Amino acid sequence: MYIPTLFDVDEAHARIKPHIHRTPVLTSRFINSLAGAELFFKCENLQKAGAFKARGASNAVFGLSDEQAAKGVATHSSGNHGTCLAYAAGRRGIPCTVVMPRTAPQAKKDAVRGYGAKVVECEPSTSSREAVFAEVVAATGAEFVHPYNDARVIAGQATCSKELIEQVTGLDAVIAPIGGGGMVSGTCLTLSNLAPHIKIYAAEPEQADDAYRSFKAGHIIADDAPVTVADGLKVPLKDLTWHFVRNHVTDILTASEAEIVDAMKLIWKRIKIVMEPSSAVPLATILKNKDLFAGKRIGVIITGGNVDLDKLPWQ
Amino acid sequence: MYIPTLFDVDEAHARIKPHIHRTPVLTSRFINSLAGAELFFKCENLQKAGAFKARGASNAVFGLSDEQAAKGVATHSSGNHGTCLAYAAGRRGIPCTVVMPRTAPQAKKDAVRGYGAKVVECEPSTSSREAVFAEVVAATGAEFVHPYNDARVIAGQATCSKELIEQVTGLDAVIAPIGGGGMVSGTCLTLSNLAPHIKIYAAEPEQADDAYRSFKAGHIIADDAPVTVADGLKVPLKDLTWHFVRNHVTDILTASEAEIVDAMKLIWKRIKIVMEPSSAVPLATILKNKDLFAGKRIGVIITGGNVDLDKLPWQ
Repeated sequence: MYIPTLFDVDEAHARIKPHIHRTPVLTSRFINSLAGAELFFKCENLQKAGAFKARGASNAVFGLSDEQAAKGVATHSSGNHGTCLAYAAGRRGIPCTVVMPRTAPQAKKDAVRGYGAKVVECEPSTSSREAVFAEVVAATGAEFVHPYNDARVIAGQATCSKELIEQVTGLDAVIAPIGGGGMVSGTCLTLSNLAPHIKIYAAEPEQADDAYRSFKAGHIIADDAPVTVADGLKVPLKDLTWHFVRNHVTDILTASEAEIVDAMKLIWKRIKIVMEPSSAVPLATILKNKDLFAGKRIGVIITGGNVDLDKLPWQ
Repeated sequence: MYIPTLFDVDEAHARIKPHIHRTPVLTSRFINSLAGAELFFKCENLQKAGAFKARGASNAVFGLSDEQAAKGVATHSSGNHGTCLAYAAGRRGIPCTVVMPRTAPQAKKDAVRGYGAKVVECEPSTSSREAVFAEVVAATGAEFVHPYNDARVIAGQATCSKELIEQVTGLDAVIAPIGGGGMVSGTCLTLSNLAPHIKIYAAEPEQADDAYRSFKAGHIIADDAPVTVADGLKVPLKDLTWHFVRNHVTDILTASEAEIVDAMKLIWKRIKIVMEPSSAVPLATILKNKDLFAGKRIGVIITGGNVDLDKLPWQ
């Protein structure tokens, strides 16, 4: 298992810069007053293809040799990694296949196809997803770019907090949602090297709290097909992301479905951005753990904005 | 009638800088491909209090003498100017009364009260609004800050396109929604002085096209209580805004209700921002007048983000 280093992050940032946005950091005085802390929202929902995963996917795609690239790339993804790999493959002009749960939002399937990639549907469970994916790779010979358990992907995601600490000085902590742990691992990779005094929190739905239970147990616990409105956070940790989570995360906090939806609506209303339920989990956990964050300067990663506008969770 | 000058704009920008955001400019490759043009969205929905009107309101409030300020400010407004005047008054710590139509979105009434200002309701017509407002001013002695027909307000709004031409080079045109004409007048004031080669377009709902008809007729035509989803654009031109519109606007374009809602949803989906229907009118008119804008670099003012999330127009 290759553990990516700060060198890989710097290389990734140089490689992907033409293909990603340096996303803005937004704030809300009203939300700060609710939280009793200063929150800095790093808006990866405004990233290319609508999610931070454009960073990792672009790093993987643009790092391929021409020979590898000609066979294309493939992945399985509950949504944003698929869209973002399709985006990156489209930028390089190479084939891309994405295995997606048939229950994934229509907007996400459309987005993958919109970038010119092929969608292959599977059942909404980790086991089905992996079985269908194996068939795809056997048929195409495509390079597998895992959504998160991949050193190239983690080095790419790590560029997000690298930008964040350039944009906001004096942060006490950074908090990001955790599903498979790609963003959290990238955050750990950057901050443990460049700003080890900044605490790293991960936020997870109570109804998909496998990372929380893994963290408390000291080994990976994986659930098959958990149910949560935060549909980007259903996947389990893997060995590489577990390495970062175990060694560098201060704590994992959880929130209920209702708390997640309330936080999502609050961000839409006050920050005026369209973001998906997964991205609301950090704020939901901040608002229920005010003592932990009181008076602190907190970076909050808004991970993505790919939501089905016809099926909003408060309606 | 005092016509504000570029000197007033520079003075306004220096005065309001501590109280406003320099809002980001966002782009979408997908929307560019639909439009056949390069569109640069100046995101005043991300402005303080959720609208560009924080600029004009702040300029008026912070330009008052202490003696005037002690009596407070008052206005009538279909929404954002009221919220923004409440915001600015709150920042200075002075009283503020806002006369609003009883049919205005609950979110806008809540926002005004949230900044500590008083809401007085009127009927949803220009005539009722002006009558109720006269009573308020007589009772309080407050300084009237008109939503748009006010040199201080127009000089404040003018700072938006001043920023825009610093942020984006080589613009061929700028397009903004037109209701009373405050933003369009500010745009005219800045661009006619600093970049007179940039064409200025105004965009208006077909169902509230009084500015369009005024422009074609050569004199102000005012409708009482037009009906449109773009609720920020129901008010008529007045003498000061008419001066700028008549002398500096290249053309006024209109869009149907369905075209406005489609453009709104497109921006939410692709730019990932929460903005109100009024802000979608420019894109709606661009998409139906592609020949006019083909291959051009166009600044598009997203004027505000104060929408009721429980009553979205596509639901």
